[in-house]
Amino acid sequence: MKKLINAPASVLADALTGVAAAHPDLAVDFANRVVSRGAAVKQGKVALISGGGSGHEPLHSGFVGLGMLDAACAGEIFTSPTPDQMLAATQAVSAGAGVLYIVKNYTGDVLNFEMAAELAEAEGIPVKSVLVADDVAVEDSTWTAGRRGVGTTVLVEKIAGAAAEEGADLDAVLAIATRVSENGRSMGVALTSATLPSVGKPSFDLPEDEIEMGVGIHGEPGRTRAPLKPAADIADELVSSILADFDFTGAPVIAMLSGLGGTPLIELYAMYGDVAALLEQRGITVARALVGDYITSLDMAGCSLTLLRADEELLRLWDAPVSTAALRWGV
Amino acid sequence: MKKLINAPASVLADALTGVAAAHPDLAVDFANRVVSRGAAVKQGKVALISGGGSGHEPLHSGFVGLGMLDAACAGEIFTSPTPDQMLAATQAVSAGAGVLYIVKNYTGDVLNFEMAAELAEAEGIPVKSVLVADDVAVEDSTWTAGRRGVGTTVLVEKIAGAAAEEGADLDAVLAIATRVSENGRSMGVALTSATLPSVGKPSFDLPEDEIEMGVGIHGEPGRTRAPLKPAADIADELVSSILADFDFTGAPVIAMLSGLGGTPLIELYAMYGDVAALLEQRGITVARALVGDYITSLDMAGCSLTLLRADEELLRLWDAPVSTAALRWGV
Repeated sequence: MKKLINAPASVLADALTGVAAAHPDLAVDFANRVVSRGAAVKQGKVALISGGGSGHEPLHSGFVGLGMLDAACAGEIFTSPTPDQMLAATQAVSAGAGVLYIVKNYTGDVLNFEMAAELAEAEGIPVKSVLVADDVAVEDSTWTAGRRGVGTTVLVEKIAGAAAEEGADLDAVLAIATRVSENGRSMGVALTSATLPSVGKPSFDLPEDEIEMGVGIHGEPGRTRAPLKPAADIADELVSSILADFDFTGAPVIAMLSGLGGTPLIELYAMYGDVAALLEQRGITVARALVGDYITSLDMAGCSLTLLRADEELLRLWDAPVSTAALRWGV
Repeated sequence: MKKLINAPASVLADALTGVAAAHPDLAVDFANRVVSRGAAVKQGKVALISGGGSGHEPLHSGFVGLGMLDAACAGEIFTSPTPDQMLAATQAVSAGAGVLYIVKNYTGDVLNFEMAAELAEAEGIPVKSVLVADDVAVEDSTWTAGRRGVGTTVLVEKIAGAAAEEGADLDAVLAIATRVSENGRSMGVALTSATLPSVGKPSFDLPEDEIEMGVGIHGEPGRTRAPLKPAADIADELVSSILADFDFTGAPVIAMLSGLGGTPLIELYAMYGDVAALLEQRGITVARALVGDYITSLDMAGCSLTLLRADEELLRLWDAPVSTAALRWGV
């Protein structure tokens, strides 16, 4: 295993040290492994909190800042953060208007965020949660009952974050977040497995001439083990699978093609060209596009495609200013 | 070789198709492989053009837009663009105030930009060039007489781009670009080799327990082949090598830790924590930091560190609005 780390056990702590050093505007609670806006938390604003296992960066800590999250809780790599961490984050950024938890659908995350919500409510902090379960690849999975939550999470964080920044109340922010969650679909493909620092070898075997269609962001099995094929054919399968699941015609779409961590940007753009052509053939209008690493799986090669059926309000919120380490515009 | 591509020969063309689809605000000249601001070119502004071999994305096409480049010329992977491409870019974005070429010090790039400048001057377009040769690892290299040009190029594009956007004339923009180039230093480390699509296997052999200290962005040999070691030790060697070459004390520093394409963000942040601590120990104040993939080498695992000795004017220009596909703030 070749990694730029000091020791497998210290990767997360060391990365938080780096986040604090690189971004002095963020507050890092090292004991609780929470990255938050710190002094920039706005009184009277609904606070947005997300979190999950580490290894998917920039999700979630890279999305803490104006127009997006107030705090992110970092679990160990591919491991849910604990209710205590989530409660600490809640206490740190609750600003009198309630808190929205943005939860990816993995059993540990779901249970721990539920417990944190109970603890916070017991302290008088109103909490609502939105669950993201957008991965069309499979029903149920290694750590999930129902569908896995993947790329749509980024879009929920951006769009609900904008609504909160505008002053929407907790119910309104929840409604927007739910609308994004319900109208987003994703599917991914792995060309290689990720290697966890604590394991030291690839999590699963993927022969040199095969790919995993519908892979999860922790390397969970997808739909099929397929022969390696041209980007256009992979794009066709991702697009077809997503469109078979949900009607994306007749409304503008926000498209995100995220690398999984080990795929160069030139390949992502090559792939996106095929995705865009296929969507156009199917009569779908992409109103906004993101191409890059947004939700990753350590050093896994591959990508995931996310489509969101948008409307004027969602597009307006999408275009609203955002200023975080990993997503920034219009400020 | 596992890549998200259609065919080795079409990677660049396919990626340009994706750039055009994802970023409708950019103009893509497919015949000349030039990405430019298109209709957004501002009359009376000094135009900034860079370019080089592909495979280092987001450099350069990801840096085309307000506050940075006016055009980027894309060569084949790891191959210089031609004078014809550079001339086409020059004709596309020249706006009456002259053109600055930002050239990384590789022999092909240098010769071709020189020839393009002559062709442009013959058409009555004033051209100046700034050469970036900031890699402290080695003197002369596989494709370079003198030092290789690497990460400081990103900082030249940002800071000189801000000066041009403010209305500085060609001589003033050249002076700023030269100041950045002369005050920036870089060094990189490879954990793995990149694999070129056209070659289909790693460009060089790097055993499982070894790293290449001082590697070039095309996989050129560095200073030493060293045993794999902790991030803190690698950081120490990069920082020490850069500080031994140039005096960074007594002025604020802009630091960029760029991934080389195959290294996850969590590792880059872990590494940056060590870099920041070492700089602090050496009495150096980091005023601004960038951590992420900015100048890459396809799927190479590893990173490069760039330090720029800044002053108030350079920091002010650094903070000026920028809006490109890969670097964006304050707009």
